[in-house]
Amino acid sequence: MRILILGGDGYLGWPTAMYFSARGHDVGVIDNMIKRQWEAEVGAEPLFPIPTLTRRVSRWRTATGRNIESFVVDIARNPRGLYNSLQQFKPDTIVHYAEQPSAPFSMRNRDACVETMTNNVAGTLNLGHAMMSACPNAHLIKLGTMGEYGTPNIDIEEGWLEITHKGRSDRVLFPKRPGSFYHLSKVADSQNLEFMCRIWGLRVTDLNQGVVYGVNTEETAISDDLKTSFHYDAVFGTVLNRFVTMAAVNFPLSIYGKGGQTRGYLNILDTLRCVELAANTPAKQGEFRVFNQFTETFSVAELAERVVKVARQLGLKVSAENLENPRVEAAQHHYQAANSALLSLGLEPRLLSDAMIADMIESVRRSSDSVQKESLKPTISWRQ
Amino acid sequence: MRILILGGDGYLGWPTAMYFSARGHDVGVIDNMIKRQWEAEVGAEPLFPIPTLTRRVSRWRTATGRNIESFVVDIARNPRGLYNSLQQFKPDTIVHYAEQPSAPFSMRNRDACVETMTNNVAGTLNLGHAMMSACPNAHLIKLGTMGEYGTPNIDIEEGWLEITHKGRSDRVLFPKRPGSFYHLSKVADSQNLEFMCRIWGLRVTDLNQGVVYGVNTEETAISDDLKTSFHYDAVFGTVLNRFVTMAAVNFPLSIYGKGGQTRGYLNILDTLRCVELAANTPAKQGEFRVFNQFTETFSVAELAERVVKVARQLGLKVSAENLENPRVEAAQHHYQAANSALLSLGLEPRLLSDAMIADMIESVRRSSDSVQKESLKPTISWRQ
Repeated sequence: MRILILGGDGYLGWPTAMYFSARGHDVGVIDNMIKRQWEAEVGAEPLFPIPTLTRRVSRWRTATGRNIESFVVDIARNPRGLYNSLQQFKPDTIVHYAEQPSAPFSMRNRDACVETMTNNVAGTLNLGHAMMSACPNAHLIKLGTMGEYGTPNIDIEEGWLEITHKGRSDRVLFPKRPGSFYHLSKVADSQNLEFMCRIWGLRVTDLNQGVVYGVNTEETAISDDLKTSFHYDAVFGTVLNRFVTMAAVNFPLSIYGKGGQTRGYLNILDTLRCVELAANTPAKQGEFRVFNQFTETFSVAELAERVVKVARQLGLKVSAENLENPRVEAAQHHYQAANSALLSLGLEPRLLSDAMIADMIESVRRSSDSVQKESLKPTISWRQ
Repeated sequence: MRILILGGDGYLGWPTAMYFSARGHDVGVIDNMIKRQWEAEVGAEPLFPIPTLTRRVSRWRTATGRNIESFVVDIARNPRGLYNSLQQFKPDTIVHYAEQPSAPFSMRNRDACVETMTNNVAGTLNLGHAMMSACPNAHLIKLGTMGEYGTPNIDIEEGWLEITHKGRSDRVLFPKRPGSFYHLSKVADSQNLEFMCRIWGLRVTDLNQGVVYGVNTEETAISDDLKTSFHYDAVFGTVLNRFVTMAAVNFPLSIYGKGGQTRGYLNILDTLRCVELAANTPAKQGEFRVFNQFTETFSVAELAERVVKVARQLGLKVSAENLENPRVEAAQHHYQAANSALLSLGLEPRLLSDAMIADMIESVRRSSDSVQKESLKPTISWRQ
């Protein structure tokens, strides 16, 4: 297939581009590198030095003989560039990761809140319009997040809910109650995409992804130049990636509050497989399809305990500490979320094992001199 | 009270400002006049010449001896100006009308879609942040729309829904399925405001307003210079205002499709009273309160029939015609929406009477030479 990866310079975008390229597909990437600016704004840097997209594409060609076409376009602010890219590349599948991806970043201040919201929402609106102009039959795979749902007291279904109220029934978008402006931007995206499917016949799969962890994929392991931008800092690092980094550098694992927050998680390798499964069985014309993309759930305290146990088995001195929660979120809550759609398409979950945790810790330890410990502690409060 | 009206140059904002000023409150208005630009972009103009906000404020002072303080600020793009206005005026109530208000405008093209979404969403986000900085205890009355709900097959409640699913219960935001990018911008506002109430303790009343009709209020009738910007065109004119204008100028009433679309309606005088009722009994700290603000429901065909009947009684030759619906919306649908909250606060609805329709037609007829007939026909399609 001809598959275009939006946000192809990022933690998930770049591995996704290589994954599809390695499997013989024609791959293009779009990015405007703004995440590198955002990282610098908050003083964060990836664990490994990340070459420019140009150099990574070139290195990939050298290593594999395969071409990845790259477009440097700001999809939120340069709609004509986006239209032109779609017209030139003619994708039949688009994977859209090109959004500001951090909840804490969006809660920094007014400016970051509005930038997150307008960047993410305008980018996705531009994309819908550009697809209608250039490739109305292409299948859009949009990355959302399980955090869109929040932690309702009812079971979470996959995007839609069959509801009966006062004796009448309807199928409605699952009611959302997210926990940050970042998550709110994804809620708006989902609403907007459902509308574009409904009135224009766009075909969309919204992947409400859990918290991703992992350092490497098959393709990032080929060369240091092909690594992905692994983040461990309190702004862009996801919790398990942070915890393994803390363990690797002998920094107490920071549990926000008592750690009762339960969320869905998945391995970065499963992210790639889920996107592939969605791409291989596209949404129908006019269908707004939602998959919950996670393989298992953990509380934060459970994750910390797992990492501490494995780190100690590796001979590391490590402990966990409870910080006052900088976020506003339920300390204890119901959490039961459906995730059968991707399983029924053939996903075979790589569940978190002690060996995986050990492997992640060892991967980080090899670069432990690069870890900026000061960026591990949360500095952004949800409160004003 | 000290009440600040955002969008004070508009169809509802200006009458609201005068209404509260006439009742002895300290009133301020904020506007950036961008609606006048949007009107010109689509070739629309209000039925009556509308003096600048400066002149209207001055005329109001001359007529009543009362002062309305005005601030020319773009709340979406000039957050510092907004912060400064709030700090200077120190409102205890804010009424927020300052949004792009037209569904067809938002469906014109990509540019208008993104402008509507980012203008409305960024303005409201800026406002929440500015309130937390300048007046965290003030009560925000935000204008939403009944169109946020769409036309679900279940009864529409007031913003929230008590839901039981698989044996568990929760109170969730009512699931929305709106019909334009404009309506989607209001859905995003509602989600964002609920979050700001939840995490910051902001107090918000979200008024999901039906379709407003009416030419005059007690205060606009004082002087021609104090009239409000009545729109009859297919972009900014609401349906009943359009129909009475068509009747007044002997233009066939344009029914989109078969006219089975049922919506909630209210008189502009009831809009003012509803805002007053909400202001007099503010939401609690941290409460995101939603009122459905309409007094009765009509189908488009019923409205056309009412207007045709009254116009003929006035001796006008008038008919209605069915156009191919330029919008994508259900031709026939369930529509049962709750509106008891404002009634229980004391609203006494002014239901649509034949005398009111006659009065509106006569008001428009006095300015019928100004009507640009070419702007009565819809030119914007929801389809691509």
